[in-house]
Amino acid sequence: MTNDVTQRVLDHAGFRQALDHIDAGYDRFVEELITLTEIPAPPFKEERKAATYLEMMRQAGLEDVASDEIGNVCGLIRGTGNDGYLVVAAHLDTVFPEGTDVTVRREGTKLFAPGIGDDTRGLSANLTLMRAIKQSGIRPKKTILFVGDVGEEGKGDLRGIRHLFAEGKYRDRIDAFVSVDGPETARIVNQAVGSYRYRVTFDGPGGHSYGAFGTVNPAYAMAEVLTGLSKLHLPKEPKTTATPSVFGGGTSINATPENVWFELDLRSVSQTELDRIDGEFHAMLGKAVEAENARADTTAGEVTVEAKRIGHRPAGAVAANAPIITSSIDAVKAFGFEPRLMASSTDANIPISLGVPAVCIGSGAGPHTGGRVHSVEEWIDVEREGQLKSLHALLAVVLSITDLED
Amino acid sequence: MTNDVTQRVLDHAGFRQALDHIDAGYDRFVEELITLTEIPAPPFKEERKAATYLEMMRQAGLEDVASDEIGNVCGLIRGTGNDGYLVVAAHLDTVFPEGTDVTVRREGTKLFAPGIGDDTRGLSANLTLMRAIKQSGIRPKKTILFVGDVGEEGKGDLRGIRHLFAEGKYRDRIDAFVSVDGPETARIVNQAVGSYRYRVTFDGPGGHSYGAFGTVNPAYAMAEVLTGLSKLHLPKEPKTTATPSVFGGGTSINATPENVWFELDLRSVSQTELDRIDGEFHAMLGKAVEAENARADTTAGEVTVEAKRIGHRPAGAVAANAPIITSSIDAVKAFGFEPRLMASSTDANIPISLGVPAVCIGSGAGPHTGGRVHSVEEWIDVEREGQLKSLHALLAVVLSITDLED
Repeated sequence: MTNDVTQRVLDHAGFRQALDHIDAGYDRFVEELITLTEIPAPPFKEERKAATYLEMMRQAGLEDVASDEIGNVCGLIRGTGNDGYLVVAAHLDTVFPEGTDVTVRREGTKLFAPGIGDDTRGLSANLTLMRAIKQSGIRPKKTILFVGDVGEEGKGDLRGIRHLFAEGKYRDRIDAFVSVDGPETARIVNQAVGSYRYRVTFDGPGGHSYGAFGTVNPAYAMAEVLTGLSKLHLPKEPKTTATPSVFGGGTSINATPENVWFELDLRSVSQTELDRIDGEFHAMLGKAVEAENARADTTAGEVTVEAKRIGHRPAGAVAANAPIITSSIDAVKAFGFEPRLMASSTDANIPISLGVPAVCIGSGAGPHTGGRVHSVEEWIDVEREGQLKSLHALLAVVLSITDLED
Repeated sequence: MTNDVTQRVLDHAGFRQALDHIDAGYDRFVEELITLTEIPAPPFKEERKAATYLEMMRQAGLEDVASDEIGNVCGLIRGTGNDGYLVVAAHLDTVFPEGTDVTVRREGTKLFAPGIGDDTRGLSANLTLMRAIKQSGIRPKKTILFVGDVGEEGKGDLRGIRHLFAEGKYRDRIDAFVSVDGPETARIVNQAVGSYRYRVTFDGPGGHSYGAFGTVNPAYAMAEVLTGLSKLHLPKEPKTTATPSVFGGGTSINATPENVWFELDLRSVSQTELDRIDGEFHAMLGKAVEAENARADTTAGEVTVEAKRIGHRPAGAVAANAPIITSSIDAVKAFGFEPRLMASSTDANIPISLGVPAVCIGSGAGPHTGGRVHSVEEWIDVEREGQLKSLHALLAVVLSITDLED
């Protein structure tokens, strides 16, 4: 049974008019998607794409369209009520480095280009929602703050949305959050996978592999930490993971390394579990270094270790029966999707960790309408019927949260 | 008490004349040393230095001066007898990559330049010995094959001398070997430190650090091998070492690595010990991979390992009472040095491993007449008296092996 607000939205004549505007704007949606995709937005270099997106938001009729201090593009559709704002966001950045060819290749309804799905389609979908609301003249009760945000991917570490909630001018007014991100409208992310990321460096005195043999080797301390990580208790529920991922160090085959390092990705949907494994990991470091300094000669110097945190995404979850989740479920169901609640690491991590109701929903009909995310072979299918169904459902999700004036 | 042959050489009037030629040629020795040092000879790129050295050997009056198939420069001083040849070698290559500034800087009697001591002074010393023998008219009984050889350092893996003994045209005639290499004439290397060098690569299926978590991680198999290496029994006598040195692998912090690797340097003066630890190391590989494939999910693929041998220097020793060693000791003692028997990894490894009497002796007065070997700050002191003493002793070593006609 659909909840009252969602039902009211679905039955609203103005909403039906808005859906017609979405349908009529399909070609423009695809055109804007291609335009935006072909503007590179490498990590920490979103300026060009942001400038174009800002202009598109102005043309869509939003108020107070402006960039904030960190590079997010923000614009309002004012609601009739006085309560808090709903943020509807998509991220500007991609994982692809400068120089990546971002030309869109078209095969039928399939579009191929790095970043086209993650998350340029989200940006384009939101423009379509903005115009559908403005053109249909429907009046949301809550003010909607549309955001094209920076720094969602990798080392961006959610810095755009982090800024929005920590220092942005609207920070005290936001009380709901929707991130339009991901390949499928049926996937409703209500659990924020938190993470700690480290670069762990072991230093030692080095020396000739034969002439100075017997001295401590930082690689052995690293090995002990790795073995410790392989034995960590990592529950399947709440899902918790530890992954040593990238390795380096040493300079010459005939020298004990002066320095070895690895990168570590710790994740959990539970902040408690994340903090537990983080604590166990840190305890391993001291022990491993102590063991190596006891095992071998430290005359020339001891092994030391530093774990530098290079990423931090807070964990958390919005209850499955929270209004923002039930209305999202009802809204996407109404358009024929079979919603599934998911855990992921998205811009929604920030509001979720702050107790702000939040959800992340994809903008594609899925499940077989896109693929190869984070690879240069990334593709999406924008086949008209499926794509419009997704856009309809997204508008219903947004308006189910804002509610509508009659 | 000095052995008979060395005593005969020392007392020989021609020998004393040869020493005078060495003294008279001191300036030329220094001049050739600088000329040769300033011709770059990076690993596998010794051609230019070889061409100049070949011309210098011709000018010194050697016979059959020619390059061999691998790039060694060879030339003969024919002996009066019919027994085997004595090789007197120094290596052409340096450890320094292309583009290294090899300009010689002079401060008093100190000369600074990469490669000046290791082993350009050896090359220059040998030219001085050639001329001293030819000009003084003394007649060695054994034929001396002077060689400027390639590929002694690092990944060169002794390829020049290896070729000389395995495929070179003189291979069946050589029955004694002197390498003039190292900073000190007092250091007599009679023990060949052998080594096996590996690049050890662990592969696995990879996958997303969270989405595909639970799959095997090749880094954990690597850690187990490292821990095994840290626990290897490595005797101090005969000195045996195992050093994991250089590390790499993985592509992204949010992915289980598809591949991690390390380089390993195993050494010993005993071929038996070297082969023992090599066997134990190989046994670890299979066990570590098996353990990781048992620990975690292999649905997407198993962890595999490959240890690619990237270097091999055979171990061995010449008995301290072998004639080549006792005569070398007597010869250097006669010039005031306090000889010490040493273990090292030099061109002499090859003949030693083949049972050919061999020794490696330095060309500097030492112990404080050089330093910073293998660094761009390498320097040697060619102070006249000390340097001439070394050259005298080297000539005595060579002629003690060849013996002299009256």
